[in-house]
Amino acid sequence: MIDITLPDGTIKTFEEGTTPMEVAKSISEGFARNVISANFNDETIETSTHLYKDGSLVLYTWTNEEGKKAFWHSSSHVLAQALEELYPGIKLSIGPAIENGFYYDVDFGDHSVSEKDFKTIENKMIEIARGKHDFTLRSVSKDDALSLYKSQNNDYKVELIENLEDGTITFCDHSTFTDLCRGGHIPNTGIIKAVKIMSVAGAYWRGDENNKQLTRIYGISFPKQKELTEYLHLLEEAKKRDHRKLGKELELFTFSQKVGQGLPLWLPKGAALRERLENFLKAAQKKAGYEMVITPHIAQKELYITSGHFEKYGADSFQPIHTPNEGEEFLLKPMNCPHHCEIYNAKPFSYKELPKRYAEFGTVYRYEQSGELHGLTRVRGFTQDDAHIFCTPDQLDKEFKDVIDLVLYVFGSLGFENFKAQVSLRDPKTPEKYIGSDENWKKAEDAILNAAIDKGLDYVVETGEAAFYGPKLDFMVKDALGRNWQLGTIQVDYNLPERFDLNYKGSDNELHRPVMIHRAPFGSMERFIAILLEHTGGNFPLWLVPEQAIVLTLSEKYEKYSEKVLKLLEKHEIRALEDNRNETIGKKIREAEMKKIPFMIIIGENEENENMISVRKHGGEDLGMISVEKFSEIVTNEVNKTLKTFK
Amino acid sequence: MIDITLPDGTIKTFEEGTTPMEVAKSISEGFARNVISANFNDETIETSTHLYKDGSLVLYTWTNEEGKKAFWHSSSHVLAQALEELYPGIKLSIGPAIENGFYYDVDFGDHSVSEKDFKTIENKMIEIARGKHDFTLRSVSKDDALSLYKSQNNDYKVELIENLEDGTITFCDHSTFTDLCRGGHIPNTGIIKAVKIMSVAGAYWRGDENNKQLTRIYGISFPKQKELTEYLHLLEEAKKRDHRKLGKELELFTFSQKVGQGLPLWLPKGAALRERLENFLKAAQKKAGYEMVITPHIAQKELYITSGHFEKYGADSFQPIHTPNEGEEFLLKPMNCPHHCEIYNAKPFSYKELPKRYAEFGTVYRYEQSGELHGLTRVRGFTQDDAHIFCTPDQLDKEFKDVIDLVLYVFGSLGFENFKAQVSLRDPKTPEKYIGSDENWKKAEDAILNAAIDKGLDYVVETGEAAFYGPKLDFMVKDALGRNWQLGTIQVDYNLPERFDLNYKGSDNELHRPVMIHRAPFGSMERFIAILLEHTGGNFPLWLVPEQAIVLTLSEKYEKYSEKVLKLLEKHEIRALEDNRNETIGKKIREAEMKKIPFMIIIGENEENENMISVRKHGGEDLGMISVEKFSEIVTNEVNKTLKTFK
Repeated sequence: MIDITLPDGTIKTFEEGTTPMEVAKSISEGFARNVISANFNDETIETSTHLYKDGSLVLYTWTNEEGKKAFWHSSSHVLAQALEELYPGIKLSIGPAIENGFYYDVDFGDHSVSEKDFKTIENKMIEIARGKHDFTLRSVSKDDALSLYKSQNNDYKVELIENLEDGTITFCDHSTFTDLCRGGHIPNTGIIKAVKIMSVAGAYWRGDENNKQLTRIYGISFPKQKELTEYLHLLEEAKKRDHRKLGKELELFTFSQKVGQGLPLWLPKGAALRERLENFLKAAQKKAGYEMVITPHIAQKELYITSGHFEKYGADSFQPIHTPNEGEEFLLKPMNCPHHCEIYNAKPFSYKELPKRYAEFGTVYRYEQSGELHGLTRVRGFTQDDAHIFCTPDQLDKEFKDVIDLVLYVFGSLGFENFKAQVSLRDPKTPEKYIGSDENWKKAEDAILNAAIDKGLDYVVETGEAAFYGPKLDFMVKDALGRNWQLGTIQVDYNLPERFDLNYKGSDNELHRPVMIHRAPFGSMERFIAILLEHTGGNFPLWLVPEQAIVLTLSEKYEKYSEKVLKLLEKHEIRALEDNRNETIGKKIREAEMKKIPFMIIIGENEENENMISVRKHGGEDLGMISVEKFSEIVTNEVNKTLKTFK
Repeated sequence: MIDITLPDGTIKTFEEGTTPMEVAKSISEGFARNVISANFNDETIETSTHLYKDGSLVLYTWTNEEGKKAFWHSSSHVLAQALEELYPGIKLSIGPAIENGFYYDVDFGDHSVSEKDFKTIENKMIEIARGKHDFTLRSVSKDDALSLYKSQNNDYKVELIENLEDGTITFCDHSTFTDLCRGGHIPNTGIIKAVKIMSVAGAYWRGDENNKQLTRIYGISFPKQKELTEYLHLLEEAKKRDHRKLGKELELFTFSQKVGQGLPLWLPKGAALRERLENFLKAAQKKAGYEMVITPHIAQKELYITSGHFEKYGADSFQPIHTPNEGEEFLLKPMNCPHHCEIYNAKPFSYKELPKRYAEFGTVYRYEQSGELHGLTRVRGFTQDDAHIFCTPDQLDKEFKDVIDLVLYVFGSLGFENFKAQVSLRDPKTPEKYIGSDENWKKAEDAILNAAIDKGLDYVVETGEAAFYGPKLDFMVKDALGRNWQLGTIQVDYNLPERFDLNYKGSDNELHRPVMIHRAPFGSMERFIAILLEHTGGNFPLWLVPEQAIVLTLSEKYEKYSEKVLKLLEKHEIRALEDNRNETIGKKIREAEMKKIPFMIIIGENEENENMISVRKHGGEDLGMISVEKFSEIVTNEVNKTLKTFK
C-alpha cells in the first residue's frame, strides 16, 4: 500500500500501482471527469502513470495553468498527426505548449502551408480527436529511438535524441502516431473539442539563423466550442482595444524613429490626459499628507553605487555618461528612491516630524532590448507616480492602511473593480537571506497583513516571495477582457535607509533608522494609460476623457450659436470641441463616435430658437433637447459617479 | 584741419593736433568736466592724445562701461604706486580693470598683506589721488623698457616686455610712478574720490600653478564717496539676498554631493513654489492657445545630428550614452526643439490648423565645467518653460505680439517693473551668412519691430546680432539691486523647419515650410527662481510665497481654536502653518519674520472668545483683530494687486 498526500493535506492510502485517475475517481466521479493532468512529487506525470511509492499528488483540471499546458501539449501531438496525414513525408521537429495554445515547427519540404489550409488542418485534427485515442507513454532505448527517426530521414529528431542522455528517452503514442516526448498529456484526444489554427510563420531550427528555416504552425484548442468562440471574440476585442492602435487614433502619443524606440512622445491630447491623471493623484496625495519634490534625471555613478543599483543592474543598463574633461561619470536615473533618500538626508529629523512622504512624478530610464519593447507597456523611459514614506517602525501600520486607501481610491475612480492583492512575506526558515531585524520584519509583516484584513482585501499570501530588503503587497487587476495586470505596489524597505545612513532622533534622544515604504498606485503613467486604454477601449471615464462633448452644427448657418454654446460649456468647465464643417450631420456623428466623444451636442434651427441643445450620448442614447445648464448637471452627475473626493 | 565725426553723426572741423578733451570742451564745458576717456576710430586713446587725421570720436563719462573701465584701470596705477610707497622693493606684475573694480598682482617678497592693511592702502591711494596728477603716455624703446625693469630685478615686467613686439611699447607716468601700459586712462588722479580695497588672494603668475604665487589685491574706486557707500550697501544687500543662502533658509532646494554638482534637488517648499509658477504660466498659455506636450530626456544621437546640435555642441557636452549590446547611442536632451519638431512631424497639417503652439516644461541637461557652476543660476540640468510655435510667415506678426503680451504678463505678475528689450536683426550687408529668404527675413524683422512698437516696449535695435537662423527679441530685466538679467527670449527660426523638413499644405494645395518661434518667458525655472529670490529678497509675491500665513498661539491652551482657524484658512485657500510650541509669542514672531511669512495670525483668549484673529504683517504692521473672512478678503485683494487674469 502507498500513502498519497493531496493538496489539502489529507492522506489517502491506495494499492501500489494506482494511477492518478483512480485517485481522482476515489474523490468523486464528477471531479475525475474533469481531471486532465497530474503532478507527483513535483514531477509532471500522466494521469495513467502507475504510482509505486508514497508522495504528494496534485490533480489538474482545465481551470489550472498546468491543466491547460497538458491540454495544449497534447493538442500539438494531434496537430503533428494531422499534418503527417495531410502532407506525407514532412519532418517534425518540436511542438511545445505556449502561453496561449501551442505550435509545431515542421519541415514541409516542397509543400507550403498557408491560411487557406487552416480549415483542412482543423478538420483533420477534430477528426482525430473524435477517435478518443489514449495518450500512452513508453520508454525506448536510444538506439531504437534513433533508428525510428533515421528511417524517416528526420535529422531534427535525430539531433534531439543524440543530445539526450541514455535511458531517459520516452515516446508517446496515440492512434497511429508516435512522437518523441517527455510526457504530461491529457488522458485521451476526445477531450479536445474545439481547435483553431491561428497563424503560420517562419522559424529557424533551434532559433539559429544559420540553420534551415522551418514552418511554425500556431494553434489553440479548447474542451468546449463555446470557449473557443469566446477566446476568438476576446482576441478580436483585444485587437480593437490595442493601446497602440487607440493611442494613434485618439492622437494621444507617438514614437519617432529619430528620438528612438521605446521613448514615447506625448501629443497634446495625451499630455493633457496624463496631466489630469497626475492632478487627480496629486490632489489625493496632498490630502494624505504627501509633499512633492523634484529631482534630476541623472546622478553621479556614486549615488547608485551607494544604493546598490549599479552593482545589480549596471552592466545591463544604459551605460555611464562621461564628461568632456573632468572624468565624472553620470547615470540615467533608473529609480527615484536614491534621490529621495538624499532629500531626506538634507536636514535632520526628529520622530515628531515623521512620517515624511516625498512624492514625485519621476521619469526614469531603463534599458530594454529593442525586441522586448511594446507600445507604452514596455518602454525605455517612463514616469513613475512614485513616493517614498520615511517613518518609524511603529508608524508602519497606519501608513500601510493609508496607502491601501489611496490605491483603492485610484482603482475605484478609474473603473477597475476586479482586483486581488498578493502579500509577499519572507521565508521564516532562511532569515539570513533578509536584511533587517526579526523584530522589524515582524512589525512590517504584521502591518501588511493587518492592513489587508482591515481593508477587506481579497488577498493571497506568498511566503518566501518578499524581496531581501522587505515584505510587500502587490495588486493584480483584471481588465475588461479578463486579463490580469500587476498595478499598484507597496513595498517595505530596510535596505536603503541602511545604505544611505538615514536616521531620526527618537523620543529617547538617540538616533534611529527610519523604515522606508516605496509605493506607486499607477506604477508607471505610460503603462497605466496603456492598460486603461485597453480596459476601456478608449472610452475613458468622463472626468478623464480628452473631449467630453462635441458641438455638431446642422449647417454652417449655426456657427454663431455654436460659438455661444462652446463659451457656455467652457464656463461650465466642460471640455468641448466643435465640428462646423460643411458635412452631413450623419457623417459628423459617425466621426464623433469614432473619436469616442461621450456627448454629441446637435445644433440647428430649433435649438437656436429655443436657446437649447440636443444631446446624444456616445453609442446612440438620445437625451433630447435640454439647456446647457441641465447638460452641465448631467455631466457633473456622471463625473461624480466615478470620481469621488478622496476622504 | 581734420574732420571729427561724433556718435550722433555730426561732423566737426578742428585743427590738427586737437585732443579729445578739447573736442569735449567745444561741445560744452559742463560735458567736458565729465569726460574721462575716449575712443578714436575704434581704438582706445587718452583724452590728451593729439589727433592728426579725420575720424570717429566717442567720448565717455563715468556712466559708460568704457568710462568705468578707464577709471578702474587708472585706479590700479594709483594702487600700484601706493603699494610701492608703502612696501618698497615689491615687484609689480599686471593690474587690469575688471567687471567691478580692478586688481594688481604683486610679488611682496617677504612682506605679507592682509585685511588689517587695507585702510592704510586706501588712505595712501586717496593721498596720491588728491595730488591731481595727470596720466601721461609715452613711447619707449624695448631696450629702455627692459633696462628699467631689469634695474629693479622685476622679472615679471621683463617677461611681459620680451613678449611684446618692438616699437609698440608705451609707459604711463603719473606723479613719481611709471608703469608699462597700453593706455586708456582718465585725465588725472584727482577724479578718483573714493577707494575701497575689497580683498586679497593668491594668484599664480600667468595663472600657471607651476609659477610663483603672487598676491592679488582687489579694489574698487568711484568718482564720488556716495557711490562707494551705495555700492557697498548693494554688495551687503546682494549677500543677504544670495539665492543660495535664501534657498537654504527657506528650504526651497538643496544639492547633494552624491547626486552631483549643478543638479538641484527641489525640496517640498521649492517644488510647490515651482509648481505654482508653472501652473500660473500654464493657465495663461492655455488661454493663449498653447498645447502641452511631453517628450523624453534622451534621444538618439541621430536626432541631434539632424538638428545640428551634435555638430555644434557635441564635443563639449555630456558624452553619448551607449547601450549594452545593440550599438545604439543616446544623448541627454540639451534642447527641447528637436523633439517638438518630431511631434509636429507626427501628422500632416493644413494651413487652417496653424499655428500649432507646443509647450513643455522640458528639463534639459548641458555640461558646464564644475568651476562655472553657481547655485541655481548656472547648473547642469534645468527646466525650460519652453514652447515652439509653428506658423505661416503671415502669422508671425500676430504671434509675436501675443508672445510679448504673455511675457509682459509674466513680468507684471512677478514684480519685475523695470526692463528693456533688445531686437537683434541680421546684418543686411552679409545676407549670405543667414538661412532663409530675404522676403521671409523682412517679414520676420518687420513683425518683431512692429510688435515692439505696438506693445510700447523700450527697445534697442542691434543690427548684425541676429542668429544665423533668425532674428530675435530679448528682454533685459533690472532687479531690485539694479543688476541686469536677461529674462525672456523670443526667437524666429528658419533653420530647424528646413532640417526637419517640416511642412504644411497651403491654400494653394502645395507644401510650404512653417516658421518656428522659440520662446521662454521664464527662461529656466531654476535661474528664474534664483533671480526672483534675489530680486525680492525672499519676500515673494503673496500668490507665490510658500506660506501666506502662520498661526501663532499665545499658549498651548489655544491649540483647539488654532486648529479651527487653520481649517477655516484652508477653506479660504490660504496656505498657512501653525506654531503651537511652548515658546513666547515674541520668539514665535521673530522666527516667523525670519521665514518671511507675510501674515502672522495671533491667537489668544480674546481672539477665541470673539471668534476672531489678530493679524500682524511681515515687517510689523498691525491689522488688529478681524474675522477670518475679513482676512481672506485682505489676502485676496493683495494677491489681485500683482496677479491679474491673463486677457
